[in-house]
Order: sequence, then C-alpha cells, then structure tokens
Amino acid sequence: MRGLIAIRPSAALLSADLFHLAYRRHLPLLGRRSPIVPLRTPNSGGRQLATISAMASASKAEDARVPPALQLALPPVSKFKIALCQLSVTPDKDRNIAHARKAIEEAASKGAQLVLLPEIWNSPYSNDSFPVYAEDIEAGGDAAPSFTMLSDVARSLQITIVGGSIPERSGGHLYNTCCILGTDGKLKGKHRKIHLFDIDIPGKITFKESKTLTAGEHPTIVDTDVGRIGVGICYDIRFQELAMLYAARGNLHINVGAHLICYPGAFNMTTGPLHWELLQRARAVDNQLFVATCSPARDTGAGYTAWGHSTLVGPFGEVIATTEHEETTIVEEIDYSLIELRRSNLPMGSQRRGDLYQLVDVQRLKSQ
Amino acid sequence: MRGLIAIRPSAALLSADLFHLAYRRHLPLLGRRSPIVPLRTPNSGGRQLATISAMASASKAEDARVPPALQLALPPVSKFKIALCQLSVTPDKDRNIAHARKAIEEAASKGAQLVLLPEIWNSPYSNDSFPVYAEDIEAGGDAAPSFTMLSDVARSLQITIVGGSIPERSGGHLYNTCCILGTDGKLKGKHRKIHLFDIDIPGKITFKESKTLTAGEHPTIVDTDVGRIGVGICYDIRFQELAMLYAARGNLHINVGAHLICYPGAFNMTTGPLHWELLQRARAVDNQLFVATCSPARDTGAGYTAWGHSTLVGPFGEVIATTEHEETTIVEEIDYSLIELRRSNLPMGSQRRGDLYQLVDVQRLKSQ
Repeated sequence: MRGLIAIRPSAALLSADLFHLAYRRHLPLLGRRSPIVPLRTPNSGGRQLATISAMASASKAEDARVPPALQLALPPVSKFKIALCQLSVTPDKDRNIAHARKAIEEAASKGAQLVLLPEIWNSPYSNDSFPVYAEDIEAGGDAAPSFTMLSDVARSLQITIVGGSIPERSGGHLYNTCCILGTDGKLKGKHRKIHLFDIDIPGKITFKESKTLTAGEHPTIVDTDVGRIGVGICYDIRFQELAMLYAARGNLHINVGAHLICYPGAFNMTTGPLHWELLQRARAVDNQLFVATCSPARDTGAGYTAWGHSTLVGPFGEVIATTEHEETTIVEEIDYSLIELRRSNLPMGSQRRGDLYQLVDVQRLKSQ
Repeated sequence: MRGLIAIRPSAALLSADLFHLAYRRHLPLLGRRSPIVPLRTPNSGGRQLATISAMASASKAEDARVPPALQLALPPVSKFKIALCQLSVTPDKDRNIAHARKAIEEAASKGAQLVLLPEIWNSPYSNDSFPVYAEDIEAGGDAAPSFTMLSDVARSLQITIVGGSIPERSGGHLYNTCCILGTDGKLKGKHRKIHLFDIDIPGKITFKESKTLTAGEHPTIVDTDVGRIGVGICYDIRFQELAMLYAARGNLHINVGAHLICYPGAFNMTTGPLHWELLQRARAVDNQLFVATCSPARDTGAGYTAWGHSTLVGPFGEVIATTEHEETTIVEEIDYSLIELRRSNLPMGSQRRGDLYQLVDVQRLKSQ
C-alpha cells in the first residue's frame, strides 16, 4: 500500500489517493488477464500511459464483480436443519425473551443447528417502542437481556443463532440490529439494518423508521458452523445489490461467497402479499444460493400488523418450506450441495458480462 | 476531454488514461456534493492529493449507479396499448412472415401502438436452423424478408414494433437479434442477445446457443413514440444487471432511464414453470418499471418446446396480463403514470447505498 494507512471500512470517505490506488489494483475495466501496467508513472505528468492489449477476454465474466467474485467454498456441513421461529410478540419484554428462548430450545430439540428469529422480536414494532426496548449490546449482561439470552442458549445448546433483530442503543443512536451467535455463544457478527423502512403507500401503509433509527454502515457476512451467512433485515431485501455482494464475497477475512442469506423481516399486509415471497425467490434464483426469512406471527391487535409467511427458498428460487401467519416454527433441511448443482446447471458466474456491467463492493475494494 | 479521441462504446477495451479520466469525471466514491478537486495535479508526482471533506452525504444514493442514474422523463405518451403476439412458428419461413404480419395488423386494429413479437419467430429454434433462416439485416430488402416485413408494417400502420428476434448473419457471425422499428418504419435499434443460452440440466434441458451464435456486445435502449424501451432476449433476463442498467440510463444520446423492458423469450418446459414469471416480476419490482415478455406458442412436435405464457408486468411486480401456451395475442393498456406512483410509494432511488455498492455501466462510463 505504499505506506498508506489502512482504511477501515467504516471510514466515511475514501481519499482520492486510495481511491486511485484501489482501482489501479483491480483495474476492473481493463481485464485481469491484461498485463498490469501503471496507470500513471511517477513524474510522468500523466501523459505516458500504457495502451492495453485488445487481446484480453471479450466478456470478462470475472470483472462483473469488483473486486472479483470469490469462489464458493465447501461449507463445514453439507446438510443440516434450520429452524424459522415465527414468534408472537407482545409489549411484555420479559415474556418475549422467555418465549423466544423456549422456541429456540424446542427447535434445537428437533435437530435444528441454525435458528433464525424474526425482525424486532423483543418489542412491538413502532417508533415509540424502539427507544424503550433498546439494548446496549456491546455492554451485554443486564444492559442487553435479549442478547444475553441468545448468547446463553446458543452456547448451552451448541447451535448457531441468527437472532432476528432487536432495537439497539449505541453511541447516542438507535439501530435495528441482528446479532449472530456462534455455537460457543460468542457474537460472530452484528448487522444493523442498512436500508431503513421509509415508505408511503397512502391509505395502505406509511412508516418512517428514520424518525428514530439510524442506518447501519456495513453489509454483514459471517462464517459459521453451518456455512457462510449474509444478513439483511426486512427492507434490505428490496435492494438486490446487497444480495449480489453477499454472493460474491465473504467478509473482509473470509474469501468465499455466501451459502445462505437470512432476512428477518416484518413485511406488512400491503407489501407482504405483493412482494415478500417474490423478493425472496428473486434473491435466491438470481444469486443461486439459499434464502431464509423469518417474520413475527401476525397480531391484528398490534399497531403494525406483520404478514407472517416465514419461508425457506432454495437456489433455483424454489420454496422449500413456508407457512401462514400464525405462530409456528418451521424446521427444515438445507442441502448446500444444491448450490453447486444449480450453478452447474446454469453457469451464470461464468456467463456474466464484466465488459458491460460491474458491481463494485465498495468496502471490500477499499479494504484491499 | 483534454484532446483525447472520443471512444465509441464498441471500443473493445478502455485505455488506462480514459479509465482514469472517466472515474475522475464521476468521482463515484467521493460523492458528487463534495468539492470537485483534481485527483492529481500535473507534474505533482502523485503525492499532492486533495483530501475530500467528510461532510458529504453519507449514503450517497446517487453513487449507487456509475455514471449516476438518470431521471425518469415524461414519456411521449402516458397511456397506450401494447400487444404481445404469442405466435405459432413453423419450419415454413414465408408462412411465418405472413402469419406474423397478420397478427401485427390485427393487433393494430385493436388499438395497439406497440407490438412485441416472440424470440425466433421466423425459424424453428435450433442450432441447425439458425444459419438457414438467418438474414442480413444491414443489407435489408430480399436479404432480410422478415426485417423488411416489420419495417413495412410499422410504417404503414404507424406503430412501434419490438420485433422479437430472428437469426442474423453479419460479418461472418450469427446473432440472435431483435430489431426495433419506429412508426416511420426505420430501424431504431438492434439488440443482439448478450447472454447466450448455454445451460445443462441433465435429463431436462441442455442447449448451447454458443455452438452457432455469437453474443452481442451492447445493451440496447431506444427512444420510441411509446417511451424509452430497453431490450433483452430470453436468457438475458436472468442477468439482473442488464435491467439495472436500463433503469438507470437511456442510450448514449438519451438522458433518462427506461420506462419498459421488453424480453422476447422462449423459455422451455423446465425453466418456464420454474422461473419465467418470477424473473419478469423481479426485474419489474426491483427496477420499478414495466416488463413485457413474448414467447412463441407451444408446439409439442417441435424440437424445442416453448413454455408460452407471454406476460405484461407493472412496476410493483404485478401481473397485468398473461396467457397460457396456445397461440394468442394479448392487447393490454400500459399506464406509465404507475411508475412515478410506485417510485413515490417506495423511493428506492434515493434509498440506495452508493457508499456500499455501485453498479458501473461500463459503456456509458466509457462514452463520457
């Protein structure tokens, strides 16, 4: 890096120099099979530039992702059971925590090695409730009873938990946050909802999460005992770019793409029937990986009525398991070998046109 | 452009200098609200670089597309009728041409101002047939009777035609090509299938278009009397990036995004039920625009059996009109005001996270 300070992904902006270097390292438009030449030699005044051979690969599938997409790794387990706990949620936080614990324990007793919880499962879903139910996850202990329960139960049952989401308080801000716990009970990753739910369908549904919440600053992908998992929360699923990033990368320390994307989400009675299943199936088929979603159970007496319909989707966009809106837990097998099979059936990874379009993973590019 | 030669989009590769300039012009990672500063001053040796203010917009939605996404323009017409002619196709080319002409005339008599035809409507869909039925579109006249018919009928009926596709012979290559005809009968654009259909689902469907066909080199978007239309052919629909480009750009001379993407396509009896409608609805809802598809009618006696199910989808991913597999023509109204409505309901364009992901339109970037 020529003595430059390493830039953390959280750095708000990239300096012009690093930007230049990063692109020079990747030469996304030049084709990685081309000879690597300096974009600009020192003291050249910018005019002595190399011309790149026109003999490079024409379609450059490898350039369709910048940095290039990473290979799929063999997951640590090929087949395992996932549980989607479609929980009822009440204004009683202690009850919600005990109730979630019980559902996780039951799922584990049925063989689930991975448990996914709903979006905002410890609190009513409302801007008024978020500050009241929020926890300080970094502090842990009594400051974060929901998180502490997840950590305890993950460790005691030796399962992986993608802990839906809870309101998080940190640095004077509130976030909609998903904690991912490993089988040792440790926090493996924390996803703060990146795309806040600000929508306005007059007479149907209007909601502005940004009134109280702050958006997260990072995509989140974690390496677990049940594979590489990307996480999005609810409205994040509408942004196809996030799933494309997850399919192409691990996290900054992991060099293969995701096997599974988990989206805890509370779609509503308008967008639920319109888009919930469609978006899940689209993310799965376009990226050729598994998608799992988990909603709260429907409570028509609540201020915000969730659609329910937690679902597991395979890499052909096929619905493997789903449910209606009542409280229930789906326990279903995931077979990761399907990913490789579908990618051999439809080898899209080698068919993309990096000469025409490139998706840039900004933070991964900056980190390299 | 500091005296640089203008680079046509067809230039195979971008010189390092232009690459650098192009990114400097757009500063995609720096935020366009930041002060524009030279990345590198002449003769600076590269060390005197500006630091960009950290006060710029944090999420930079405008940077999620590079070059930035263009505004939606008012289309020349808000409401109009589109026809999807799901034609039967036979080995008799003359019959296919006369048959298509008749269907177009009937559609126009029902008020259609835009007619969409199926993929490969003048020829059986097979690698053996493509060279035999191929036409020299540039030569026109007797060398391209299918194209000539489309041009004649568009002019005489004063309608726009997105002419499905036919095998095209050009420069010693064969392409799977869609001609777009304006109301004056002139060729407004020609889309050569960009992503060739090379798939292998053993025991179900195996096909390798690349045995005979060459892939096109350009996305195709045209400005017509019935709005700005992007075109993809069949397998092109699997690549979400293409639709994302169309939503963000016009063609090189047009400065607003597409209202409608037309995909002539002959999905098969395996991928049809699995993915045909799913992909159309996904492209529509993710990009908040209209999608229209047109398949040949099913002929179970043919070597390749098409799924049928031509469909019109609105910007909420809603199926506005569809059909089964028999020969038929759908005539249905498109109301472009729905695009603006849906984008105000779900303002995704301003919610994207250009600080995390950027889709680069390589040819548009090169052209600027």
